[in-house]
Amino acid sequence: MVKEFNTNIEYPNFGFEILQRDAGSFARVGLLKTPHGTIETPNFIFVGTKASVKNLHPVQMREAGADMILSNTYHLYIQPGPDLVHKMGGLHKFMGWDGPMLTDSGGFQIFSLGTGTGADEIKGKGKAGNKSLLKIDEQDGAIFKSYKDGSLCRLNPEISMDVQRKLGADLVVQMDECTPHSAEREYTENSMQMSHRWGDRSLNAFEKDHDGTQGVYGVVQGGVYRDLREESAEYTRSRPFFGTAIGGCLGGTKVHFYEILSWLPERIHPDRPVHLLGIGKIEDIFEGVKQGMDTFDCVTPTREARHGRALMRGAKGGFINLRNSCFKDDPSPLDETLGLASSALYSKAYIQHLLKAGEMLAFQIVSQHNVAVIARLMREIRATLKAGGDLDKLRKEWLPD
Amino acid sequence: MVKEFNTNIEYPNFGFEILQRDAGSFARVGLLKTPHGTIETPNFIFVGTKASVKNLHPVQMREAGADMILSNTYHLYIQPGPDLVHKMGGLHKFMGWDGPMLTDSGGFQIFSLGTGTGADEIKGKGKAGNKSLLKIDEQDGAIFKSYKDGSLCRLNPEISMDVQRKLGADLVVQMDECTPHSAEREYTENSMQMSHRWGDRSLNAFEKDHDGTQGVYGVVQGGVYRDLREESAEYTRSRPFFGTAIGGCLGGTKVHFYEILSWLPERIHPDRPVHLLGIGKIEDIFEGVKQGMDTFDCVTPTREARHGRALMRGAKGGFINLRNSCFKDDPSPLDETLGLASSALYSKAYIQHLLKAGEMLAFQIVSQHNVAVIARLMREIRATLKAGGDLDKLRKEWLPD
Repeated sequence: MVKEFNTNIEYPNFGFEILQRDAGSFARVGLLKTPHGTIETPNFIFVGTKASVKNLHPVQMREAGADMILSNTYHLYIQPGPDLVHKMGGLHKFMGWDGPMLTDSGGFQIFSLGTGTGADEIKGKGKAGNKSLLKIDEQDGAIFKSYKDGSLCRLNPEISMDVQRKLGADLVVQMDECTPHSAEREYTENSMQMSHRWGDRSLNAFEKDHDGTQGVYGVVQGGVYRDLREESAEYTRSRPFFGTAIGGCLGGTKVHFYEILSWLPERIHPDRPVHLLGIGKIEDIFEGVKQGMDTFDCVTPTREARHGRALMRGAKGGFINLRNSCFKDDPSPLDETLGLASSALYSKAYIQHLLKAGEMLAFQIVSQHNVAVIARLMREIRATLKAGGDLDKLRKEWLPD
Repeated sequence: MVKEFNTNIEYPNFGFEILQRDAGSFARVGLLKTPHGTIETPNFIFVGTKASVKNLHPVQMREAGADMILSNTYHLYIQPGPDLVHKMGGLHKFMGWDGPMLTDSGGFQIFSLGTGTGADEIKGKGKAGNKSLLKIDEQDGAIFKSYKDGSLCRLNPEISMDVQRKLGADLVVQMDECTPHSAEREYTENSMQMSHRWGDRSLNAFEKDHDGTQGVYGVVQGGVYRDLREESAEYTRSRPFFGTAIGGCLGGTKVHFYEILSWLPERIHPDRPVHLLGIGKIEDIFEGVKQGMDTFDCVTPTREARHGRALMRGAKGGFINLRNSCFKDDPSPLDETLGLASSALYSKAYIQHLLKAGEMLAFQIVSQHNVAVIARLMREIRATLKAGGDLDKLRKEWLPD
């Protein structure tokens, strides 16, 4: 089914070392090496869509314990444009983050924002996006309208790799089509096959300018169909990608999504780092880790903060709502044990006041706290795995029934 | 004209020491002592209207060199209310700022926001505010609608002092009426006389609960009329205020405002600290210092930042507009000599990108930079005065013709 591919690509400045494996699951502890540093896995990649993690300086990200940041190719392609970022020395220098970075291919946003389907499913948003996707053509790629000025833009494997090359993140992702989970089998299969051909084109484009500064991830698609997911896993395994990303709209329900993940650990390349695209709620992180996922990304930490929700180990649902009247005169800080001024200096009463008064400092405080909570979650997961401990027990400490 | 007042009030935990005087003007270098620390003057009091300097943590204010913060009684009276702030340990603890603080009386906002006149004149805003002021009565005070929920609120000298007592800033201000500069002489005179009677009531209310933790400023009113300003200066001088604040709508033009200031140095109390209320543009600071003003406050540093304007020593008008196309690919930082990451880490191109992308990190970066620029301005003014230097020469370095 999967055609041959003769090019080999080496990644001398990159590495992924699996240090330890969980006895009861596919979970593993690893070291992911990039030109901008080595991070421990499992880990979380915090989202800085437009070359900025919303409301937070890079130094505040470091204080909170963040190890890695992701920016979105789609958004930076439109504003300020890859040539400007390249001229300014690349994403790291542009935004002042000296640790590892990843950019996605831009495909997800084009299809999800463009049709108003994918993002709704994955991110749980009810509102359909602006229909900006005008045309998908396998050879030429996707043509879409810029949300900035309405001008026509094009993204295909060669353009995506060129844009990501100019942005200069350590890890980049092949161009793919993100199929909605509601898609019929035939559409999903054809889309997946196209994504595989786009994967080969991405690799060829990547290889052409490869100078050792970037590593490229292949993407496993195939929707909700087990045989397609397995075929896609085989495709990525057979190609000289540095890492494996799990993409697509992962089922309509949580059970389904977890079931899809369970098909993959024994099919994908066993030695490569695995990234679960766009997923990062606390319960999903636990499930993903058990299925062998090494890294996660999600806008949850900063988006929840802007809604006044502080992530909290052991709270019902994993968070508290700081607008709740019970915090009106609560003098206690968010969490003094995080070693962070944002979590220790301010009372919940003060943060509620800031939220009510529309003071943006609230978003800073809670965003940094939320990043620190997720960074701690990942540290505790790694510590538990290293100690041969029980992930389910840890999950119950974080998310009591 | 000014009646007698028999109460004396002592301020054992406060002090103002004039260390040096300028030979060619009324400028002086001083030390202003409060229970939360001693600061050098001339100095700038940064505005944190709702118990938060917009977008900045207290630690970021310290990094930028800020010495003192002001919050607005009017806003905190409405949200979250003085009782809550008191219960949470007072403003310092509530917002996490351990340095000196000042609150105003609330009178300015009631009259300016309530009638849509005063603030427009003083702050140079064209848009009239919402007419929330329902009634002014000398005995009962002002009755106004809360902008939060439309409920009726009252502020008079006793309430203002009680609210400011509960907020707990080091320095507080007597209740006064802020008369528009367009007011006729008769209105201005009557208003001033009422403000003086309110000043006495403020002092009596202040004295009743005085425990040494606060110092109160009297306010010089009198509009654009020299004899009234002189009478008001005499009034404040004759009363046991700790400091003197210069209030009211200071003329319709800059010349007029500077002329009004020139009437005061030889009339107000010579040994007390003098605060110029709500004024703080760079050129106004130079003029105010020469007329013996010791402290200034203004929303300029953070408000300009939200408009993408970075204050800049030596730039035309004192600032650069970061949205200007000339900065589109400018790799230079705002100012590497300020010793601040916000001013040194990011290129102007990056900040322009953040502004265009609507990323709130831009406001943080430029706000902290602007605070640092004004803090440096005040340091340079003090250094010039200490060295017996020429303030006009310094002004030309900051604001070239």
